[in-house]
Amino acid sequence: MIHQDTIVALATPSGAGAIAVIRLSGKDAIVIADTCFKSVKNQKRLSLQKTHTIHLGHIIDGNKTIDEVLVSVFKNPNSYTGEDVLEVSCHGSNYIQQEIIQLFLRKGCRMATAGEFTLRAFLNGKLDLSQAEAVADLISSDNEASHQIAMQQMRGGFSSEIAKLREELLNFASLIELELDFAEEDVEFADRTQFKDLVERISFVLKRLIDSFAVGNVIKNGIPVAIVGEPNVGKSTLLNALLNEERAIVSEIAGTTRDTIEDEISIGGIGFRFIDTAGIRETKDVVESIGIKKTFEKIDQAQVVVFLADSLNFKEDVFINSFKIEIEKIKNKYPLKPLLIVANKVDKLDDNQIKSIKNEIPQIHFLSAKNSIGIDDLKDKLLSFVNTGALRNNDTIVTNSRHYDSLLKALDEIEKVKYGLQSGLSGDLLAIDIRQALYHFGEITGEITNDDLLGNIFANFCIGK
Amino acid sequence: MIHQDTIVALATPSGAGAIAVIRLSGKDAIVIADTCFKSVKNQKRLSLQKTHTIHLGHIIDGNKTIDEVLVSVFKNPNSYTGEDVLEVSCHGSNYIQQEIIQLFLRKGCRMATAGEFTLRAFLNGKLDLSQAEAVADLISSDNEASHQIAMQQMRGGFSSEIAKLREELLNFASLIELELDFAEEDVEFADRTQFKDLVERISFVLKRLIDSFAVGNVIKNGIPVAIVGEPNVGKSTLLNALLNEERAIVSEIAGTTRDTIEDEISIGGIGFRFIDTAGIRETKDVVESIGIKKTFEKIDQAQVVVFLADSLNFKEDVFINSFKIEIEKIKNKYPLKPLLIVANKVDKLDDNQIKSIKNEIPQIHFLSAKNSIGIDDLKDKLLSFVNTGALRNNDTIVTNSRHYDSLLKALDEIEKVKYGLQSGLSGDLLAIDIRQALYHFGEITGEITNDDLLGNIFANFCIGK
Repeated sequence: MIHQDTIVALATPSGAGAIAVIRLSGKDAIVIADTCFKSVKNQKRLSLQKTHTIHLGHIIDGNKTIDEVLVSVFKNPNSYTGEDVLEVSCHGSNYIQQEIIQLFLRKGCRMATAGEFTLRAFLNGKLDLSQAEAVADLISSDNEASHQIAMQQMRGGFSSEIAKLREELLNFASLIELELDFAEEDVEFADRTQFKDLVERISFVLKRLIDSFAVGNVIKNGIPVAIVGEPNVGKSTLLNALLNEERAIVSEIAGTTRDTIEDEISIGGIGFRFIDTAGIRETKDVVESIGIKKTFEKIDQAQVVVFLADSLNFKEDVFINSFKIEIEKIKNKYPLKPLLIVANKVDKLDDNQIKSIKNEIPQIHFLSAKNSIGIDDLKDKLLSFVNTGALRNNDTIVTNSRHYDSLLKALDEIEKVKYGLQSGLSGDLLAIDIRQALYHFGEITGEITNDDLLGNIFANFCIGK
Repeated sequence: MIHQDTIVALATPSGAGAIAVIRLSGKDAIVIADTCFKSVKNQKRLSLQKTHTIHLGHIIDGNKTIDEVLVSVFKNPNSYTGEDVLEVSCHGSNYIQQEIIQLFLRKGCRMATAGEFTLRAFLNGKLDLSQAEAVADLISSDNEASHQIAMQQMRGGFSSEIAKLREELLNFASLIELELDFAEEDVEFADRTQFKDLVERISFVLKRLIDSFAVGNVIKNGIPVAIVGEPNVGKSTLLNALLNEERAIVSEIAGTTRDTIEDEISIGGIGFRFIDTAGIRETKDVVESIGIKKTFEKIDQAQVVVFLADSLNFKEDVFINSFKIEIEKIKNKYPLKPLLIVANKVDKLDDNQIKSIKNEIPQIHFLSAKNSIGIDDLKDKLLSFVNTGALRNNDTIVTNSRHYDSLLKALDEIEKVKYGLQSGLSGDLLAIDIRQALYHFGEITGEITNDDLLGNIFANFCIGK
């Protein structure tokens, strides 16, 4: 389906750069461009050019030349959207970008809404829905793992698995429904043993996909890590050492980190979001105590807690004892949350001191944030909390909560079918559950859809994609 | 000349967008791309494709697929740089951009320096130097006038005029130098009358171009306008009304604008930079007095001054008298600077009051920034200070201080030639001055150049252009 209205949008990030790309798609994309494009050679008409060709010329508005541009022509159905598509590569000035877009709008285009190019690609069957969703994930991917998953999903890895199961299930559904037409003759077109096998297989795959969501979600959104500890033990310095640049303001004055600061780094392809917080000590300072309240809030949100102390303090036995109590407090409050005990400023201790502290607190990890000692070990420890097995095995990983939701519902229906088969449920009742499962499969790939759903999905895209 | 080394850079603005474009240029651009591009159809090799064609495929790094991309192929000499050029249009994630660029670097490209693509275009004769410089101006143009001038210069309007005069002058130079070879025979190959005409013509053109620099400079850089006045008369509100959005913080408390804020709008295609400043009253408040010092500094920098007062104050005769004194003060300190006297909050006066104030201060311009009354009139008045005649007549306008400098030097030499002709200077001495003038002409178009000069010029470009 080629849309009657032609849409236009800036496809490159806004702001000045060497070049910018403006994209048009729709029935009149090429015709409209022809009215304001003058080729450098031979007065070429764009509509007479072959698909996937590039033409040098000027965008003109009456007597005014707006820019010298390269125009790329894509003819339907061989384009991203499946419609006629035109891309204008112009000089990257904001003024020029705006002038060209305004000109196209006057010539009859309308501004594309967010994700509308990809929506059209979906509606024209160039992508299924989960592939279209992966386009947005791909653009927002900022580390190797999230990129790899989005790429796999965009290339159809996930939806082809679903589509294959759906097709097999659909076959059985048809056979069972056929049986209903011959109900009086008591025939069985659908081999119940084979069908049980299929249902088992589907159930297994669905469970695997559902399980993968935990790691998928972590990979997509990054793992929140709370760095907590008393003021002035070097939380900001540690954060900077991890981030390898000066993001947080580091100061010698205890309690300078009032607001929480978040920043993300990629370790082994997994994103970790570090949350810098004020210390956990008792205090009468109002601003500081807000910081402490935030500390616990941040531990609540974090999946991993780094409890940081100053190595020098461990020289006093009193401190070691109170520190052990604090560790127990955190462990009691958050029994399931991985907790890393870290002692900063290790450069201020000698080997004997280190040894005796390790005797008291065996799990302690020594480092010097300032001198970048032990930082890589800390990164390795953080990575060890992530189950990257699925990622390494190149398994399909579900990262989208909409897919997760449909998978859960599909599994629920499949389990009903399984139970029905075991208990010898009649074909007409089985068929209802199978249809429901098929429905939820279809939601993932977009065979089953509606305007609201599409609206929600594509609203998260950027304009121009 | 096709460079042996192949350069790569991101050509679109950094940051996430729908798409990003990575550009390669050099001897191995297409060969390198072939090692990591896998076409979707038919295992196409890019090096076997025609120029100006686009190919869908994947950028792969060993077993890893980095992205699905469109690759545009431009074969020398039909490319921006005149070399083999390749443009990869990928998904606009920072991660993907970086991965692809890193891959190309590993495959033997090196990062392009600022403006290096355009430098190569110049070195390969695709553009002369003033056209190359116009590319940077075009990208940074942010209003109609600066855009129009850059466009004209990029299309060769300015340099073709210079080149034509240079050629004519070169002819005469050759003839005069030929005379020197026949010095003993006392022949005159160069018709002195025609030559005088030419020198007059060149002198006239040079003067016109030199004069155009004043307006060119204003158009390129925008006209700085200082808005001054007592605290709380509505300077920020006026600025907002002019800018048509809430850029400056507006508050009811007198003296809230401590720091100067600059913002630019385009009026009639000319950029005006408005400078919002603290009031000019005497004060004991330290921060405020820094603001007042800045006010005078800003008037120093401004080309136009808007002196703003609150209409309500004019109800008191005492105020009118002291206001007149203030106007005189500014006029005495800045006799040549256009000064606009503006009374804000006109909605709080009745017609009689307005009339009687106009009697006292005839040049006063009434407006209400809050209600957008009189704003357009103010814009017209501002525009009237700019000599846009040259712009309207589509005359060549010089905006580049390097060109201005060379034009001044060329004029200086031409005046010497003119004087020499009048005073019957000998051919050998004439020839020296002519050669000097030719040299300065050549500096503009880039026939005369050196590495330092090129380095300075292209350092101002963005990377990727």
